[in-house]
Amino acid sequence: MSNNPTYDSLRTRLGELHDLNKIGWVLGWDQRTMMAPGGGAVRADQIATLNRIAHEKFTADEVGDLLEALRDFEAAEPYESDAAALIRRTRYDYQRERRVSTDLRVAMARASALANSAWVQARRNNDYASFKPRLAEILDLKRAYADAVREPEQSRYDALVDDFEHGITTIEIAEIFSAVRDGIAPLLTRITANADKVDGAALQGDFPAEQQAALCRATLEPLGFHPGAWRLDPTVHPFASNSATQDIRITTRYEPHILGPAFFGSLHEFGHGLYEHQVDPALERTPLCRGTSLGWHESQSRMWENLVGRSRAFTHWVHPRLKRVFRKHFARYDAEAFYRAANRVQPSFIRIEADEVTYTLHIVIRFELEQELIAGALSVDDLPLAWNDKMRRYLGVEVPSDSLGVLQDVHWSAGYFGYFPTYSLGSILASQLWVAIERDIPDLERQIGRGEFQPLRAWLGEHIHKHGRKFTPRELLQRVLGVDRIDVAPYLGYLHTKFGELYA
Amino acid sequence: MSNNPTYDSLRTRLGELHDLNKIGWVLGWDQRTMMAPGGGAVRADQIATLNRIAHEKFTADEVGDLLEALRDFEAAEPYESDAAALIRRTRYDYQRERRVSTDLRVAMARASALANSAWVQARRNNDYASFKPRLAEILDLKRAYADAVREPEQSRYDALVDDFEHGITTIEIAEIFSAVRDGIAPLLTRITANADKVDGAALQGDFPAEQQAALCRATLEPLGFHPGAWRLDPTVHPFASNSATQDIRITTRYEPHILGPAFFGSLHEFGHGLYEHQVDPALERTPLCRGTSLGWHESQSRMWENLVGRSRAFTHWVHPRLKRVFRKHFARYDAEAFYRAANRVQPSFIRIEADEVTYTLHIVIRFELEQELIAGALSVDDLPLAWNDKMRRYLGVEVPSDSLGVLQDVHWSAGYFGYFPTYSLGSILASQLWVAIERDIPDLERQIGRGEFQPLRAWLGEHIHKHGRKFTPRELLQRVLGVDRIDVAPYLGYLHTKFGELYA
Repeated sequence: MSNNPTYDSLRTRLGELHDLNKIGWVLGWDQRTMMAPGGGAVRADQIATLNRIAHEKFTADEVGDLLEALRDFEAAEPYESDAAALIRRTRYDYQRERRVSTDLRVAMARASALANSAWVQARRNNDYASFKPRLAEILDLKRAYADAVREPEQSRYDALVDDFEHGITTIEIAEIFSAVRDGIAPLLTRITANADKVDGAALQGDFPAEQQAALCRATLEPLGFHPGAWRLDPTVHPFASNSATQDIRITTRYEPHILGPAFFGSLHEFGHGLYEHQVDPALERTPLCRGTSLGWHESQSRMWENLVGRSRAFTHWVHPRLKRVFRKHFARYDAEAFYRAANRVQPSFIRIEADEVTYTLHIVIRFELEQELIAGALSVDDLPLAWNDKMRRYLGVEVPSDSLGVLQDVHWSAGYFGYFPTYSLGSILASQLWVAIERDIPDLERQIGRGEFQPLRAWLGEHIHKHGRKFTPRELLQRVLGVDRIDVAPYLGYLHTKFGELYA
Repeated sequence: MSNNPTYDSLRTRLGELHDLNKIGWVLGWDQRTMMAPGGGAVRADQIATLNRIAHEKFTADEVGDLLEALRDFEAAEPYESDAAALIRRTRYDYQRERRVSTDLRVAMARASALANSAWVQARRNNDYASFKPRLAEILDLKRAYADAVREPEQSRYDALVDDFEHGITTIEIAEIFSAVRDGIAPLLTRITANADKVDGAALQGDFPAEQQAALCRATLEPLGFHPGAWRLDPTVHPFASNSATQDIRITTRYEPHILGPAFFGSLHEFGHGLYEHQVDPALERTPLCRGTSLGWHESQSRMWENLVGRSRAFTHWVHPRLKRVFRKHFARYDAEAFYRAANRVQPSFIRIEADEVTYTLHIVIRFELEQELIAGALSVDDLPLAWNDKMRRYLGVEVPSDSLGVLQDVHWSAGYFGYFPTYSLGSILASQLWVAIERDIPDLERQIGRGEFQPLRAWLGEHIHKHGRKFTPRELLQRVLGVDRIDVAPYLGYLHTKFGELYA
């Protein structure tokens, strides 16, 4: 408690709201990992009720009155202080959420809960038609939402992106993606010409789910996954969730014949989990207790998945662990074979299994389709055709089924329009951060090769994680890197060096 | 929706309250089965917040106004109608809950959530001292609660019992238990003299948890456990929970060298689950959507555990399934050996593993200790000694450790004082019901022997389950059996016949 009863009163309210918010996360996690399918309809009502109450409590006039009454207090506190940050970020959230009617907020929550079950079903049965009406409903709601919240200068899609990456515009993203595409084009040409230099056999074989799970655990624990505060569960589409900084839940999907998705997927989700796990405990039960944006979040997940996980040092360190679980297989494939297979470039139709070079092309496809869907230029009827067409044109692959095509990702069923760009923004940011980390920890690569992750974890905790959502994405960029914009140069440099060597 | 907007308004409010209530069940289930230990502190806050909101919403004057405004509507509806029952039962709940302050309700919820983690820890480490302060806190709160809600003619303990078995008194329970103890005394003497007639070897061996889980599933599925609406998970202390009638969650505990606890325990929890699963779907998302009392609930769980599960017909039907999972073991022990081992009478210190004859003695011990604790005549300091002393005097067993003694059950950590008597009341009621069921289904035993459970399930659904909480425990007794009181005669008759034969 502070010396300011008005501030304490705000904090108490925000603590309760945060509880409701995190309860919603637990319900969502439960729905995706544990709940029997029969529970879906009532779960949607439960989530709707939770959202109704949270929205009413947060948008109440009393919250606005408290925020007004705290203007002097806020001005007197240092900008970097928890108190000033809490008031500042809450004021932004409050103004935005006041534009959303309770009915709309509840309708979105209910539609997403129902769409999740429908999507799982549709994906399993390759039945896009059964998912289509749910998707259409979500799109209508997201358009209404965008209209409610957007600033005069924002497009609808800008407004949706802002929920995930505050302060960036669609045009800015398009410019960044264009620079990446231009930058990787010559590399891709070179790789295509030398495609036979790298093969993926080391990741193909018979990998029973239980053993994959054991391998993931054996790999994650040295990284910082403690059973006292973490869980790993199987699910249809991998994700990270949490109920508190000491209750982190990541999920993954076990493919019986390919090791990559679960192995690198769990490293990816670990990166998300670690961000939330290392937020300053003083921010627990406040709306600052989470990563500042999805771009920053993906910078962490893509860093652990790729810059750490797909590095030569890491793959060589982890190889004995692979061998312990899949003895025969990894007696045939040594560490270097595993490293090469883990970095094989091959256009494919599944984003989460995509290599680092073609990854952005997957994101661009979704980024373009989303803009068209939100603008109403593309209908849900035409979506699978448009999807398949772009996959053919950008990646040169034929999509074999909607399950492996337009239904592959969970995001749209959850109403996450505007989320996908953050994956590539995160990948780019990760490389930018890596330059700074290598400067501060010159021994980094050797440490990874020895399985020492504490210094890296500490760096991320100290510079990024502990702040939670105290600073905006751009403020954090300023603080951590001293720059104002995401820069694609380190990312392109990294790709050219790494894949240039592999496909020399 | 009805034609009465006042009623619809009540229903909408109660639907939201029911959502909050069931969300609390999901959080509790999650805490006991899934949550990493680190999440305990924040989970307690989440549960406290949920309880605060639910209590404030339910006890609001507007709910009382709606109930008043509905008096004519209620009188015009048939007594048995859903609408009349909803108003009637809600009026009772409302009057009772209005006597409880929000602070007290929240304090109880938080204390229970924290005590659960403390209990798991204490039980694991055989460390009663670490649990003691939590238990003392819960007792203080339960006394305050009893004082708040009790009617002038009720003792504190009466008031606590009423939460679990509405309408029964401590004196009535004591009379029933006394009749049972008198009734089983000569039987126990005879059994003790012939103790070597039955041995438990068929249930002892090496039973890996995973195979036990497979066996439980293979047994439960023909009974009515459908994966589309049910879950089975491991936990420290078995329980049944649910989020909706189509989302039933039961748990069990796998002992590596004894098959009984998990096998018969999961039948027990199945009985609870089936009650909730078969409530009329029209009552979903209303406060009537659950069993009417814990006594009735235990009548169902104890029925499936004992009258079905430990019957000769059932054990003979299930034996091939046992053999399929534990081939070598059950090649040595035939169906009859399994039947006899499942019904071996032997005073032991673990209630959930107790035989049917000595079971009530376990309950009497807790019933007596609870009354003394609530009255303040027994302190938490002296509890382990008092526990061990009663175990010695009533059951003739020496308690080897607090983990296997006073810490063995989850109930007190959850604040469930007054719950234990319902186990024995349920066992007695189950036998009373069984007489009626055998009259209606003369072929019952042979059906069980053939693995046909649908007729029994349908009888229970039609006569008991579908009504949910529409009728009070006593009203249901009247409707189902045409009597006003629980009668120990069928129960004693059943025990004498079954165990007289086994120990002849």
